[in-house]
Amino acid sequence: MILHLKNNVAHDRAEEIAASINAFLIHSEGKHVLISGAAMKEVPGDIHSEVDEFWVFDNDIQLASKKYRSEKREVKIGNVTIGGTNNSTLLIGGPCSVESEAQIREGAELIVDMGLTTLRGGCYKPRTSPYSFQGMGYEGLMLLKKMREEYGLNVITEVRDATHVHDVIEHSDVIQIGAKAMYDQGILRACAKTNKPVLIKRGFGTTLKEFVQAAEFVLSGGNENVILCERGLRTFETNTRFTLDLCGVAWLQEHTNLPIVLDPSHAMGYAYGVPVLSRACVAMGIDGLLIEAHRNPKVAKSDASQQLTHDEFRALLESLKPVANAVGYKMI
Amino acid sequence: MILHLKNNVAHDRAEEIAASINAFLIHSEGKHVLISGAAMKEVPGDIHSEVDEFWVFDNDIQLASKKYRSEKREVKIGNVTIGGTNNSTLLIGGPCSVESEAQIREGAELIVDMGLTTLRGGCYKPRTSPYSFQGMGYEGLMLLKKMREEYGLNVITEVRDATHVHDVIEHSDVIQIGAKAMYDQGILRACAKTNKPVLIKRGFGTTLKEFVQAAEFVLSGGNENVILCERGLRTFETNTRFTLDLCGVAWLQEHTNLPIVLDPSHAMGYAYGVPVLSRACVAMGIDGLLIEAHRNPKVAKSDASQQLTHDEFRALLESLKPVANAVGYKMI
Amino acid sequence: MILHLKNNVAHDRAEEIAASINAFLIHSEGKHVLISGAAMKEVPGDIHSEVDEFWVFDNDIQLASKKYRSEKREVKIGNVTIGGTNNSTLLIGGPCSVESEAQIREGAELIVDMGLTTLRGGCYKPRTSPYSFQGMGYEGLMLLKKMREEYGLNVITEVRDATHVHDVIEHSDVIQIGAKAMYDQGILRACAKTNKPVLIKRGFGTTLKEFVQAAEFVLSGGNENVILCERGLRTFETNTRFTLDLCGVAWLQEHTNLPIVLDPSHAMGYAYGVPVLSRACVAMGIDGLLIEAHRNPKVAKSDASQQLTHDEFRALLESLKPVANAVGYKMI
Amino acid sequence: MILHLKNNVAHDRAEEIAASINAFLIHSEGKHVLISGAAMKEVPGDIHSEVDEFWVFDNDIQLASKKYRSEKREVKIGNVTIGGTNNSTLLIGGPCSVESEAQIREGAELIVDMGLTTLRGGCYKPRTSPYSFQGMGYEGLMLLKKMREEYGLNVITEVRDATHVHDVIEHSDVIQIGAKAMYDQGILRACAKTNKPVLIKRGFGTTLKEFVQAAEFVLSGGNENVILCERGLRTFETNTRFTLDLCGVAWLQEHTNLPIVLDPSHAMGYAYGVPVLSRACVAMGIDGLLIEAHRNPKVAKSDASQQLTHDEFRALLESLKPVANAVGYKMI
Repeated sequence: MILHLKNNVAHDRAEEIAASINAFLIHSEGKHVLISGAAMKEVPGDIHSEVDEFWVFDNDIQLASKKYRSEKREVKIGNVTIGGTNNSTLLIGGPCSVESEAQIREGAELIVDMGLTTLRGGCYKPRTSPYSFQGMGYEGLMLLKKMREEYGLNVITEVRDATHVHDVIEHSDVIQIGAKAMYDQGILRACAKTNKPVLIKRGFGTTLKEFVQAAEFVLSGGNENVILCERGLRTFETNTRFTLDLCGVAWLQEHTNLPIVLDPSHAMGYAYGVPVLSRACVAMGIDGLLIEAHRNPKVAKSDASQQLTHDEFRALLESLKPVANAVGYKMI
Repeated sequence: MILHLKNNVAHDRAEEIAASINAFLIHSEGKHVLISGAAMKEVPGDIHSEVDEFWVFDNDIQLASKKYRSEKREVKIGNVTIGGTNNSTLLIGGPCSVESEAQIREGAELIVDMGLTTLRGGCYKPRTSPYSFQGMGYEGLMLLKKMREEYGLNVITEVRDATHVHDVIEHSDVIQIGAKAMYDQGILRACAKTNKPVLIKRGFGTTLKEFVQAAEFVLSGGNENVILCERGLRTFETNTRFTLDLCGVAWLQEHTNLPIVLDPSHAMGYAYGVPVLSRACVAMGIDGLLIEAHRNPKVAKSDASQQLTHDEFRALLESLKPVANAVGYKMI
Repeated sequence: MILHLKNNVAHDRAEEIAASINAFLIHSEGKHVLISGAAMKEVPGDIHSEVDEFWVFDNDIQLASKKYRSEKREVKIGNVTIGGTNNSTLLIGGPCSVESEAQIREGAELIVDMGLTTLRGGCYKPRTSPYSFQGMGYEGLMLLKKMREEYGLNVITEVRDATHVHDVIEHSDVIQIGAKAMYDQGILRACAKTNKPVLIKRGFGTTLKEFVQAAEFVLSGGNENVILCERGLRTFETNTRFTLDLCGVAWLQEHTNLPIVLDPSHAMGYAYGVPVLSRACVAMGIDGLLIEAHRNPKVAKSDASQQLTHDEFRALLESLKPVANAVGYKMI
Repeated sequence: MILHLKNNVAHDRAEEIAASINAFLIHSEGKHVLISGAAMKEVPGDIHSEVDEFWVFDNDIQLASKKYRSEKREVKIGNVTIGGTNNSTLLIGGPCSVESEAQIREGAELIVDMGLTTLRGGCYKPRTSPYSFQGMGYEGLMLLKKMREEYGLNVITEVRDATHVHDVIEHSDVIQIGAKAMYDQGILRACAKTNKPVLIKRGFGTTLKEFVQAAEFVLSGGNENVILCERGLRTFETNTRFTLDLCGVAWLQEHTNLPIVLDPSHAMGYAYGVPVLSRACVAMGIDGLLIEAHRNPKVAKSDASQQLTHDEFRALLESLKPVANAVGYKMI
């Protein structure tokens, strides 16, 4: 249940009520908002007079639900805004991993040159083998920070586990929670305490309900800048790396109020399929697209097969523009 | 291995060679074509002089492979042609099931009125419960035939099992092999002996390789008019009926030479998601789209939740046209 | 809904009632039994006086449900009986495919020599490629028949599609409906009209509910001799061929009244895992175990990697006996 | 590649070599052991004379591989030992969550009374909704510690994320890494630096290879006391909570040298199936069984449907003893 308290309820009293019904208390659009579990179906008699409005839910998708807020939320990333009624699809590009200053600089220059705003690059890589390249870690994060400052770009990078979440929060414009980390409450709770945008990737074995509930961890802690990112399910089909769940995207668009970014690179796993899948994604009217591009994919230290060359990435944007227009969107 | 024999090899000799290497023999574009398993890697010495060209394969995707024919095949359905370089997306519409003459007639009139050409409607329904509506069977097929004759439409209907495959072949313009029947060799072998187009739906638990190999059953029997239809995988996600595999579609476009039709209605299972998914499908540059529409979905005898109303179906077509144009295609 | 009519209701009247409520009519244990869909929740007023007992259901698992018959059904295969309270686990062995008279004879002699009763062997192979060995077909069936007659064995073989279902019904003691054919109503309806035992394998993409509903097709047609066989689901894990669903077996044991046979050979796909998995299966208290064994697996024409040698098959039985005893069963 | 250095190579030199080939260095059974990625196939010429033995691998399953150590590893938990040639199946029981001192005390007394040694209980619960009971956290851990001291029991509890991993390492006899946390390198790397046993649960969307590679993170950091725990995959089947992958267990037994514990409670999700599944597990010859039991499952704060009553748990042990004996094991 979500309850909006009346404007005349003092903060101390709001905290008292929250404690009494075991609810989260956040401040949203000038209101005290209480969120209790969906099992709560009725407003207790003793606080009835202090409640302005309330919403009852079937399950624990509450703050993210269209039943609560029917309009899509807006999220500001630096000086660009996605979601809401912006009808903008933010193209985020860059290499899978930050590998060196020269390499990430080429990525940054590509983004700038194309008139885009947001650079991606992994520093803390969630590799499944201890014997693979594990990312440059903090050193990579500092390189991203340098690009951000030198080129005025927004940067997005992934947090792998709770040990470095505060570093990523400090130096990244968007905190990416990866598919393997999205249940990590150490990360989710830390992200709930900042106001920086958080992009949560759906785990490859994660149901839609669990996915949105991960967003509820952040929202109910007071950070309203949450973006959902679908990047493919693990299914029996192994000729592609994962199976991008666009039925699930249609469900998210219908039932939640959060902006949606899609990541066809990880879903497909092969560069040849990225452009055509990207067109499918953009035709759904989405808020962003996350694409891996590398100056020389063949020598990339991770995900070599799925990264586009810089030329392919430029061509991709051109091919996406008419598709976005066809559904009333623009590529930004 | 596929072998093209030289033009001067007589038919009897071609049959003799086929028998000697345990190969299928078909006649394609004026040539004798032999197809043996992919395990065969070398042309036997004694027939070497009779072979014009040959292709070696890694697996049993052979006739359908781009390695054999790099251009997409054309398939003629009545007086429309899909595939090849037509860049046309055929919109096929109609109810899930033929329920009565009045009902299917309304479907037919909708198709005619919208300037479309192809009507769908199930007669032999592959229901999973014996206690559900099982379709009108032969009687329904006769109603489809009537619509075809009265309105000059192409019709497509599903064959459920081998007991009625010949009836469907006789009276349908496209023979649809359903997701649950696509391994059925009684059906596949019967379809191999006609020249009518065969649309094979991918089973919801079927790998891409198995799917294309089902097409090989038809192609190697001599029927070159095969269309592949992706309609969703069964995954752990149950908020949507199935998970439409567009990564798989990208793979099929890259590796096979067969036209591709998509069925977002069955994948999604809910009407609300069908238009947005359809736009995603069309943006991939596909050869057809199969959509369920019913004059009154609420009372439909099967798949009530996923059928569009006639108004929604009309609106769908309008929304798809600019998307098709954006990728160089046209809706037909 | 299932209804038992009173004993004094004549057959003609029973048929009339069945038609009036759109129900199946079967004769079971001396009674007229009507089965309508689970949507029917109340006995119509006009037949109330003719109904002896009735059962209401949540879904279309009805005749197979423990709610209808709480005791496990018995099925007689030749002169052995499984299910009921027999606490017997029938070990069925033999090669994947019948390949020649000499080969299947060795299989038959192994079974006889070990004191077992039931020989398996595939004749109509549901291969996914047209270029693989497709089985010996009718010729293989005649070899099985010969073994049956010469050695007094029960034989079980698979029906691939409806074109040869009557041949299999005539010559096999148990009709096996394979995982790829279990939705095939041409087969299911034919099997409903015989009294021979029918073993239905669960499709690798089939839910438990759909699986049991396939059995309902046979049961509601009047054949009560149905056996369920779990043989593995297709999941994302590819280091084993399939994933044997023993949670599902626990569910079937709790909710259905049908005997259960397990097939660890196909699930595992590798001979090394078959003995240990077989012990797991037998420890669940099951009615049968289906194991592939071949005189020389390396040269087998199908499923070479998963077939046991004859020596391994003998050792398997010895290792299973104490496990069966530990749960109050005996290997037969 | 794994390399054993000769005994006369000094520690400093071993570190120098490790750095030069980018390898992990651990000390195992009195030897310097270097582990590099599986991509390394040859011993560099300049260190050849310092290498005693080496092993080449197809993939990054190395220290856990039977190719490296063919015998199963032993792990000591307090004063009991599993794995190796002990042929013991350790029955671990207790509630899903520690809920109060009175409740966990009853669990502890049950374990003592049954002659068992190891108590489970969750303190940091990895719930998917922020609005569910999240566990007692550190307070719960202190209660477990109290039980451990008062009753001389071993305790096992789950670490949810890296923020509290050191507390769990300090106070638990076995550190459980849950299915949702098993990719968490913050946890894995912390566990690599202790010598306490680590039980890693397989993620429900995790391949066998990734699962064992998670173990490699711990092993390559120097902690050799790793136990693998299979607890069910997420598949399309939803009538059971998960699908226990016993084919995967057969694969692990064949290919890895780590002890295996099974968790049928979480796989099944329903108490009715836990005993029969447990018998299947024990019949495979496993090193442990993790079972949830609660004094009153109906009021449990988490996983109410799958916990056994204390009486059911006692009966379970009795029914498992003969099954364990049948495969040469004993329940401890």
